[in-house]
Amino acid sequence: MASNILCRKIGYAFNHPKLLRQALTHRSHSLPHNERLEFLGDSILNCAVAGLIFRRFPDVTEGDLSRIRANLVNQQALAELAQTLELGGLIRFGEGELKSGGDRRPSILADTLEAVLGAIYLDGGFPEAERVVVSLFTPLLQGLDPQILSKDPKTLLQEYLQSRRLALPQYIVVAATGEAHQQQFQVECVVPKPSLRTAGTGASRRSAEQEAARQAYEQLQTQN
Amino acid sequence: MASNILCRKIGYAFNHPKLLRQALTHRSHSLPHNERLEFLGDSILNCAVAGLIFRRFPDVTEGDLSRIRANLVNQQALAELAQTLELGGLIRFGEGELKSGGDRRPSILADTLEAVLGAIYLDGGFPEAERVVVSLFTPLLQGLDPQILSKDPKTLLQEYLQSRRLALPQYIVVAATGEAHQQQFQVECVVPKPSLRTAGTGASRRSAEQEAARQAYEQLQTQN
Repeated sequence: MASNILCRKIGYAFNHPKLLRQALTHRSHSLPHNERLEFLGDSILNCAVAGLIFRRFPDVTEGDLSRIRANLVNQQALAELAQTLELGGLIRFGEGELKSGGDRRPSILADTLEAVLGAIYLDGGFPEAERVVVSLFTPLLQGLDPQILSKDPKTLLQEYLQSRRLALPQYIVVAATGEAHQQQFQVECVVPKPSLRTAGTGASRRSAEQEAARQAYEQLQTQN
Repeated sequence: MASNILCRKIGYAFNHPKLLRQALTHRSHSLPHNERLEFLGDSILNCAVAGLIFRRFPDVTEGDLSRIRANLVNQQALAELAQTLELGGLIRFGEGELKSGGDRRPSILADTLEAVLGAIYLDGGFPEAERVVVSLFTPLLQGLDPQILSKDPKTLLQEYLQSRRLALPQYIVVAATGEAHQQQFQVECVVPKPSLRTAGTGASRRSAEQEAARQAYEQLQTQN
Protein backbone atom coordinates (compact mmCIF):
# COMPACT_ATOMS: atom_id res chain seq x y z
CA MET A 1 0.00 0.00 0.00
CA ALA A 2 1.21 3.46 -0.94
CA SER A 3 0.57 4.77 2.58
CA ASN A 4 2.97 2.15 3.95
CA ILE A 5 5.71 3.96 2.06
CA LEU A 6 4.65 7.17 3.76
CA CYS A 7 4.85 5.47 7.16
CA ARG A 8 8.35 4.31 6.38
CA LYS A 9 9.38 7.80 5.30
CA ILE A 10 8.09 9.45 8.45
CA GLY A 11 9.20 6.60 10.67
CA TYR A 12 5.84 5.90 12.23
CA ALA A 13 3.54 2.89 11.89
CA PHE A 14 -0.12 3.45 12.75
CA ASN A 15 -1.92 1.24 15.23
CA HIS A 16 -5.18 2.46 13.73
CA PRO A 17 -4.76 2.90 9.95
CA LYS A 18 -8.25 4.42 9.87
CA LEU A 19 -6.77 7.57 11.41
CA LEU A 20 -4.19 7.89 8.67
CA ARG A 21 -6.91 7.28 6.11
CA GLN A 22 -8.93 10.15 7.59
CA ALA A 23 -5.88 12.42 7.61
CA LEU A 24 -5.47 11.75 3.90
CA THR A 25 -9.12 12.51 3.05
CA HIS A 26 -9.83 15.97 1.69
CA ARG A 27 -13.19 17.47 2.55
CA SER A 28 -14.18 17.30 -1.13
CA HIS A 29 -14.08 13.49 -0.93
CA SER A 30 -16.24 12.27 1.93
CA LEU A 31 -16.76 12.24 5.67
CA PRO A 32 -14.87 11.82 7.92
CA HIS A 33 -12.42 14.22 6.27
CA ASN A 34 -9.24 15.70 7.66
CA GLU A 35 -10.19 19.19 8.83
CA ARG A 36 -10.53 18.41 12.51
CA LEU A 37 -7.25 16.50 12.45
CA GLU A 38 -5.64 19.49 10.78
CA PHE A 39 -6.75 21.72 13.67
CA LEU A 40 -5.13 19.32 16.09
CA GLY A 41 -1.99 18.82 13.98
CA ASP A 42 -1.41 22.54 13.59
CA SER A 43 -1.00 23.03 17.32
CA ILE A 44 1.02 19.87 17.77
CA LEU A 45 3.38 21.05 15.06
CA ASN A 46 3.76 24.49 16.61
CA CYS A 47 4.32 23.00 20.02
CA ALA A 48 6.86 20.41 18.90
CA VAL A 49 8.82 22.96 16.88
CA ALA A 50 8.74 25.32 19.87
CA GLY A 51 10.34 22.61 22.00
CA LEU A 52 12.86 21.79 19.29
CA ILE A 53 14.13 25.33 18.82
CA PHE A 54 13.94 26.14 22.53
CA ARG A 55 16.51 23.40 23.12
CA ARG A 56 18.52 24.04 19.99
CA PHE A 57 18.94 27.78 20.61
CA PRO A 58 19.48 28.14 24.36
CA ASP A 59 20.60 31.75 24.12
CA VAL A 60 18.10 33.44 21.85
CA THR A 61 15.28 35.60 23.13
CA GLU A 62 11.60 34.84 23.03
CA GLY A 63 11.16 37.21 20.08
CA ASP A 64 13.82 35.41 18.09
CA LEU A 65 12.30 32.03 18.92
CA SER A 66 9.00 33.28 17.48
CA ARG A 67 10.74 34.50 14.36
CA ILE A 68 12.60 31.24 13.90
CA ARG A 69 9.40 29.27 14.24
CA ALA A 70 7.52 31.51 11.77
CA ASN A 71 10.38 30.88 9.38
CA LEU A 72 10.18 27.11 9.78
CA VAL A 73 6.45 26.61 10.11
CA ASN A 74 4.61 28.26 7.24
CA GLN A 75 2.58 27.07 4.32
CA GLN A 76 5.46 27.05 1.89
CA ALA A 77 7.79 25.07 4.14
CA LEU A 78 5.05 22.57 4.99
CA ALA A 79 4.07 22.15 1.35
CA GLU A 80 7.68 21.44 0.46
CA LEU A 81 7.94 18.84 3.20
CA ALA A 82 4.69 17.31 1.95
CA GLN A 83 6.13 17.15 -1.54
CA THR A 84 9.23 15.38 -0.29
CA LEU A 85 6.92 12.84 1.33
CA GLU A 86 4.93 12.61 -1.94
CA LEU A 87 1.78 13.27 0.02
CA GLY A 88 -0.18 14.73 -2.89
CA GLY A 89 -0.68 11.38 -4.57
CA LEU A 90 -2.03 9.82 -1.38
CA ILE A 91 -4.79 12.33 -0.70
CA ARG A 92 -8.34 11.26 -1.51
CA PHE A 93 -10.15 14.08 -3.33
CA GLY A 94 -13.55 14.68 -4.79
CA GLU A 95 -13.49 14.62 -8.57
CA GLY A 96 -13.72 18.38 -9.10
CA GLU A 97 -10.95 19.15 -6.63
CA LEU A 98 -8.65 16.63 -8.24
CA LYS A 99 -9.33 17.99 -11.73
CA SER A 100 -8.49 21.51 -10.60
CA GLY A 101 -5.10 20.34 -9.34
CA GLY A 102 -5.84 20.01 -5.62
CA ASP A 103 -3.08 17.44 -5.24
CA ARG A 104 -0.50 20.10 -6.09
CA ARG A 105 -2.02 23.04 -4.22
CA PRO A 106 0.38 24.20 -1.46
CA SER A 107 -2.40 24.99 1.01
CA ILE A 108 -3.87 21.50 0.69
CA LEU A 109 -0.48 19.83 0.94
CA ALA A 110 0.40 21.83 4.05
CA ASP A 111 -2.98 21.16 5.69
CA THR A 112 -2.74 17.45 4.97
CA LEU A 113 0.69 17.21 6.54
CA GLU A 114 -0.73 18.84 9.66
CA ALA A 115 -3.62 16.38 9.62
CA VAL A 116 -1.18 13.46 9.46
CA LEU A 117 0.57 14.85 12.56
CA GLY A 118 -2.80 15.14 14.30
CA ALA A 119 -3.49 11.51 13.44
CA ILE A 120 -0.13 10.39 14.86
CA TYR A 121 -0.89 12.26 18.09
CA LEU A 122 -4.23 10.48 18.46
CA ASP A 123 -2.75 7.15 17.47
CA GLY A 124 0.48 7.13 19.44
CA GLY A 125 0.49 10.13 21.77
CA PHE A 126 2.34 13.42 21.76
CA PRO A 127 5.89 12.05 22.13
CA GLU A 128 5.51 10.03 18.92
CA ALA A 129 4.14 13.04 17.01
CA GLU A 130 6.95 15.15 18.43
CA ARG A 131 9.53 12.62 17.30
CA VAL A 132 8.20 12.76 13.73
CA VAL A 133 8.19 16.58 13.77
CA VAL A 134 11.75 16.66 15.06
CA SER A 135 12.94 14.29 12.34
CA LEU A 136 11.17 16.34 9.64
CA PHE A 137 12.35 19.75 10.85
CA THR A 138 15.86 19.12 12.13
CA PRO A 139 17.30 19.19 8.57
CA LEU A 140 15.56 22.54 8.00
CA LEU A 141 17.37 24.05 10.99
CA GLN A 142 20.61 23.84 9.06
CA GLY A 143 19.19 25.93 6.25
CA LEU A 144 17.96 28.62 8.62
CA ASP A 145 19.11 32.10 7.76
CA PRO A 146 21.06 33.17 10.86
CA GLN A 147 20.28 36.78 9.98
CA ILE A 148 16.66 36.40 10.96
CA LEU A 149 17.92 36.11 14.50
CA SER A 150 19.12 39.67 14.58
CA LYS A 151 16.55 41.46 12.47
CA ASP A 152 13.52 43.26 13.76
CA PRO A 153 10.13 42.93 12.01
CA LYS A 154 10.29 46.36 10.31
CA THR A 155 13.63 45.44 8.74
CA LEU A 156 12.39 42.00 7.73
CA LEU A 157 9.24 43.48 6.16
CA GLN A 158 11.20 46.14 4.30
CA GLU A 159 13.66 43.60 2.92
CA TYR A 160 10.86 41.25 1.93
CA LEU A 161 9.15 43.99 -0.09
CA GLN A 162 12.37 45.37 -1.57
CA SER A 163 13.48 41.95 -2.75
CA ARG A 164 10.21 41.73 -4.70
CA ARG A 165 10.46 45.33 -5.99
CA LEU A 166 7.30 46.27 -4.12
CA ALA A 167 6.52 49.62 -2.54
CA LEU A 168 7.59 50.09 1.08
CA PRO A 169 5.06 50.18 3.91
CA GLN A 170 3.74 53.29 5.59
CA TYR A 171 3.28 53.52 9.34
CA ILE A 172 0.43 55.66 10.59
CA VAL A 173 -0.27 56.44 14.23
CA VAL A 174 -4.03 56.04 14.54
CA ALA A 175 -4.35 56.50 18.28
CA ALA A 176 -2.32 57.48 21.31
CA THR A 177 -4.15 57.04 24.58
CA GLY A 178 -3.35 57.10 28.27
CA GLU A 179 -1.38 59.51 30.39
CA ALA A 180 2.20 60.51 29.68
CA HIS A 181 3.91 57.85 31.77
CA GLN A 182 1.70 55.05 30.53
CA GLN A 183 0.82 55.83 26.95
CA GLN A 184 -0.51 53.30 24.48
CA PHE A 185 0.11 53.79 20.81
CA GLN A 186 -1.82 52.20 18.03
CA VAL A 187 -0.10 52.17 14.68
CA GLU A 188 -1.23 50.90 11.32
CA CYS A 189 1.15 49.38 8.84
CA VAL A 190 -0.11 49.94 5.31
CA VAL A 191 1.43 47.83 2.57
CA PRO A 192 0.33 49.06 -0.89
CA LYS A 193 0.82 45.81 -2.77
CA PRO A 194 -0.24 43.13 -1.98
CA SER A 195 -2.76 45.43 -0.30
CA LEU A 196 -2.57 44.81 3.41
CA ARG A 197 -3.26 46.71 6.59
CA THR A 198 -2.29 45.54 10.01
CA ALA A 199 -2.51 47.19 13.39
CA GLY A 200 -0.12 47.07 16.30
CA THR A 201 -0.26 48.50 19.79
CA GLY A 202 2.59 49.21 22.13
CA ALA A 203 3.93 51.42 24.89
CA SER A 204 5.96 53.38 22.35
CA ARG A 205 5.42 54.38 18.79
CA ARG A 206 8.36 52.25 17.80
CA SER A 207 7.13 49.11 19.51
CA ALA A 208 3.65 49.57 18.03
CA GLU A 209 5.23 49.91 14.57
CA GLN A 210 7.28 46.77 15.10
CA GLU A 211 4.20 44.85 16.14
CA ALA A 212 2.22 46.03 13.10
CA ALA A 213 5.19 45.18 10.86
CA ARG A 214 5.47 41.74 12.41
CA GLN A 215 1.84 40.98 11.64
CA ALA A 216 2.19 42.21 8.06
CA TYR A 217 5.36 40.16 7.56
CA GLU A 218 3.72 37.04 8.92
CA GLN A 219 0.63 37.53 6.75
CA LEU A 220 2.80 37.92 3.67
CA GLN A 221 4.67 34.75 4.51
CA THR A 222 1.47 32.78 5.01
CA GLN A 223 -0.06 34.02 1.78
CA ASN A 224 2.65 32.36 -0.26
CA MET B 1 7.58 27.52 50.83
CA ALA B 2 4.83 29.43 49.06
CA SER B 3 5.57 27.75 45.75
CA ASN B 4 4.89 24.36 47.35
CA ILE B 5 1.31 25.49 47.78
CA LEU B 6 1.23 26.31 44.08
CA CYS B 7 2.51 22.83 43.25
CA ARG B 8 -0.21 21.30 45.36
CA LYS B 9 -2.86 23.42 43.66
CA ILE B 10 -1.75 22.45 40.17
CA GLY B 11 -0.99 18.86 41.17
CA TYR B 12 2.57 18.81 39.98
CA ALA B 13 5.82 18.57 41.97
CA PHE B 14 8.95 19.78 40.21
CA ASN B 15 12.03 17.58 39.92
CA HIS B 16 14.04 20.73 39.23
CA PRO B 17 12.67 23.58 41.37
CA LYS B 18 15.02 25.94 39.52
CA LEU B 19 12.71 25.73 36.52
CA LEU B 20 9.72 26.83 38.56
CA ARG B 21 11.80 29.63 40.02
CA GLN B 22 12.66 30.83 36.53
CA ALA B 23 9.01 30.61 35.46
CA LEU B 24 8.14 32.88 38.38
CA THR B 25 10.81 35.47 37.55
CA HIS B 26 9.63 38.54 35.65
CA ARG B 27 12.12 40.11 33.26
CA SER B 28 12.25 43.20 35.48
CA HIS B 29 13.87 41.11 38.21
CA SER B 30 16.91 39.28 36.86
CA LEU B 31 18.18 36.69 34.44
CA PRO B 32 17.18 33.97 33.77
CA HIS B 33 13.65 35.35 33.52
CA ASN B 34 10.53 33.68 32.25
CA GLU B 35 10.11 34.98 28.70
CA ARG B 36 11.53 31.97 26.89
CA LEU B 37 9.48 29.63 29.09
CA GLU B 38 6.43 31.69 28.24
CA PHE B 39 7.04 31.13 24.52
CA LEU B 40 7.18 27.41 25.17
CA GLY B 41 4.21 27.37 27.53
CA ASP B 42 2.00 29.28 25.12
CA SER B 43 2.24 26.55 22.49
CA ILE B 44 1.93 23.75 25.03
CA LEU B 45 -1.22 25.36 26.34
CA ASN B 46 -2.73 25.76 22.87
CA CYS B 47 -1.82 22.21 21.98
CA ALA B 48 -3.16 20.66 25.17
CA VAL B 49 -6.42 22.61 24.94
CA ALA B 50 -6.73 21.58 21.29
CA GLY B 51 -6.49 17.93 22.35
CA LEU B 52 -8.92 18.46 25.20
CA ILE B 53 -11.66 20.03 23.10
CA PHE B 54 -11.04 17.74 20.13
CA ARG B 55 -11.98 14.81 22.36
CA ARG B 56 -14.70 16.61 24.26
CA PHE B 57 -16.56 17.83 21.17
CA PRO B 58 -16.39 14.98 18.69
CA ASP B 59 -18.99 16.46 16.37
CA VAL B 60 -18.01 20.09 15.98
CA THR B 61 -16.20 21.46 12.96
CA GLU B 62 -12.66 22.74 12.81
CA GLY B 63 -13.94 26.32 12.76
CA ASP B 64 -15.93 25.76 15.93
CA LEU B 65 -12.96 24.11 17.62
CA SER B 66 -10.91 27.25 16.88
CA ARG B 67 -13.65 29.44 18.30
CA ILE B 68 -13.96 27.33 21.42
CA ARG B 69 -10.24 27.48 22.00
CA ALA B 70 -10.09 31.26 21.46
CA ASN B 71 -12.82 31.51 24.04
CA LEU B 72 -10.94 29.39 26.57
CA VAL B 73 -7.37 30.53 25.95
CA ASN B 74 -7.12 34.29 26.10
CA GLN B 75 -5.46 36.76 28.38
CA GLN B 76 -8.50 37.33 30.54
CA ALA B 77 -9.19 33.65 31.12
CA LEU B 78 -5.54 32.94 31.86
CA ALA B 79 -5.26 35.88 34.24
CA GLU B 80 -8.31 34.62 36.12
CA LEU B 81 -6.82 31.16 36.42
CA ALA B 82 -3.58 32.73 37.63
CA GLN B 83 -5.53 34.64 40.26
CA THR B 84 -7.21 31.46 41.46
CA LEU B 85 -3.74 29.99 41.86
CA GLU B 86 -2.60 33.18 43.64
CA LEU B 87 0.29 33.41 41.24
CA GLY B 88 0.74 37.18 41.55
CA GLY B 89 2.27 36.96 45.01
CA LEU B 90 4.82 34.36 43.87
CA ILE B 91 6.29 36.32 40.97
CA ARG B 92 9.69 37.93 41.50
CA PHE B 93 9.65 41.49 40.15
CA GLY B 94 12.05 44.37 39.88
CA GLU B 95 11.19 47.14 42.30
CA GLY B 96 9.66 49.51 39.74
CA GLU B 97 7.45 46.86 38.22
CA LEU B 98 6.17 45.80 41.62
CA LYS B 99 5.40 49.38 42.65
CA SER B 100 3.41 49.94 39.48
CA GLY B 101 1.22 46.95 40.31
CA GLY B 102 2.83 44.33 38.08
CA ASP B 103 1.59 41.55 40.34
CA ARG B 104 -1.99 42.42 39.45
CA ARG B 105 -1.53 43.13 35.75
CA PRO B 106 -3.54 40.61 33.68
CA SER B 107 -0.91 40.36 30.93
CA ILE B 108 1.82 39.48 33.43
CA LEU B 109 -0.38 36.98 35.27
CA ALA B 110 -1.34 35.29 31.99
CA ASP B 111 2.26 35.19 30.76
CA THR B 112 3.51 33.76 34.03
CA LEU B 113 0.95 30.97 33.98
CA GLU B 114 2.15 30.08 30.49
CA ALA B 115 5.75 30.12 31.72
CA VAL B 116 4.83 27.71 34.54
CA LEU B 117 3.39 25.33 31.95
CA GLY B 118 6.57 25.63 29.91
CA ALA B 119 8.57 24.76 33.01
CA ILE B 120 6.43 21.68 33.69
CA TYR B 121 6.97 20.52 30.10
CA LEU B 122 10.74 20.80 30.48
CA ASP B 123 10.68 19.24 33.92
CA GLY B 124 8.28 16.36 33.40
CA GLY B 125 7.47 16.12 29.69
CA PHE B 126 4.44 16.96 27.63
CA PRO B 127 2.01 14.45 29.19
CA GLU B 128 2.52 16.02 32.62
CA ALA B 129 2.01 19.54 31.29
CA GLU B 130 -1.05 18.35 29.41
CA ARG B 131 -2.46 16.78 32.58
CA VAL B 132 -2.14 20.10 34.41
CA VAL B 133 -3.77 22.00 31.52
CA VAL B 134 -6.64 19.53 31.42
CA SER B 135 -7.24 19.87 35.15
CA LEU B 136 -7.18 23.68 34.93
CA PHE B 137 -9.41 23.98 31.89
CA THR B 138 -11.94 21.18 32.32
CA PRO B 139 -13.98 23.25 34.80
CA LEU B 140 -14.05 26.10 32.26
CA LEU B 141 -15.64 23.85 29.66
CA GLN B 142 -18.80 23.76 31.72
CA GLY B 143 -19.07 27.54 31.60
CA LEU B 144 -18.65 27.64 27.85
CA ASP B 145 -21.37 29.52 26.05
CA PRO B 146 -22.86 26.88 23.74
CA GLN B 147 -23.95 29.69 21.45
CA ILE B 148 -20.41 30.35 20.31
CA LEU B 149 -20.62 27.01 18.57
CA SER B 150 -23.23 28.21 16.15
CA LYS B 151 -22.22 31.80 15.61
CA ASP B 152 -20.08 33.07 12.80
CA PRO B 153 -17.33 35.68 13.41
CA LYS B 154 -19.32 38.61 11.97
CA THR B 155 -22.17 37.88 14.36
CA LEU B 156 -19.81 37.44 17.30
CA LEU B 157 -18.05 40.72 16.52
CA GLN B 158 -21.33 42.60 16.13
CA GLU B 159 -22.66 41.28 19.41
CA TYR B 160 -19.40 42.05 21.19
CA LEU B 161 -19.54 45.68 20.05
CA GLN B 162 -23.28 46.07 20.64
CA SER B 163 -23.01 44.76 24.18
CA ARG B 164 -20.49 47.53 24.85
CA ARG B 165 -22.56 50.18 23.04
CA LEU B 166 -19.79 50.66 20.48
CA ALA B 167 -20.22 51.48 16.81
CA LEU B 168 -20.57 48.56 14.41
CA PRO B 169 -17.80 47.60 12.01
CA GLN B 170 -17.63 48.49 8.35
CA TYR B 171 -16.53 46.00 5.71
CA ILE B 172 -14.68 47.37 2.71
CA VAL B 173 -13.64 45.34 -0.31
CA VAL B 174 -10.12 46.56 -1.03
CA ALA B 175 -9.22 44.12 -3.79
CA ALA B 176 -10.77 41.47 -5.99
CA THR B 177 -8.28 39.60 -8.09
CA GLY B 178 -8.20 36.54 -10.32
CA GLU B 179 -10.54 35.29 -12.99
CA ALA B 180 -14.24 34.75 -12.51
CA HIS B 181 -14.10 31.10 -11.45
CA GLN B 182 -11.21 31.59 -9.08
CA GLN B 183 -11.57 35.05 -7.60
CA GLN B 184 -9.84 36.21 -4.45
CA PHE B 185 -11.39 38.95 -2.36
CA GLN B 186 -9.61 41.07 0.15
CA VAL B 187 -11.82 42.81 2.64
CA GLU B 188 -11.01 45.16 5.48
CA CYS B 189 -12.97 45.21 8.67
CA VAL B 190 -12.86 48.67 10.21
CA VAL B 191 -13.89 48.99 13.84
CA PRO B 192 -14.20 52.67 14.85
CA LYS B 193 -13.62 52.19 18.55
CA PRO B 194 -11.34 50.74 19.84
CA SER B 195 -9.78 51.72 16.52
CA LEU B 196 -8.90 48.56 14.69
CA ARG B 197 -8.43 47.45 11.13
CA THR B 198 -8.04 43.90 10.05
CA ALA B 199 -7.83 42.31 6.64
CA GLY B 200 -9.24 39.02 5.41
CA THR B 201 -9.00 37.20 2.13
CA GLY B 202 -11.29 34.57 0.74
CA ALA B 203 -12.81 33.05 -2.34
CA SER B 204 -16.00 35.05 -1.79
CA ARG B 205 -16.73 38.44 -0.39
CA ARG B 206 -18.58 36.82 2.45
CA SER B 207 -15.76 34.51 3.44
CA ALA B 208 -13.24 37.37 3.29
CA GLU B 209 -15.51 39.42 5.55
CA GLN B 210 -15.84 36.54 7.99
CA GLU B 211 -12.07 36.15 8.10
CA ALA B 212 -11.51 39.87 8.71
CA ALA B 213 -14.22 39.83 11.40
CA ARG B 214 -12.65 36.81 13.04
CA GLN B 215 -9.32 38.58 13.32
CA ALA B 216 -10.92 41.72 14.73
CA TYR B 217 -12.91 39.68 17.25
CA GLU B 218 -9.81 37.81 18.38
CA GLN B 219 -7.80 41.03 18.71
CA LEU B 220 -10.53 42.58 20.83
CA GLN B 221 -10.60 39.54 23.07
CA THR B 222 -6.84 39.56 23.54
CA GLN B 223 -6.75 43.26 24.33
CA ASN B 224 -8.81 42.77 27.45
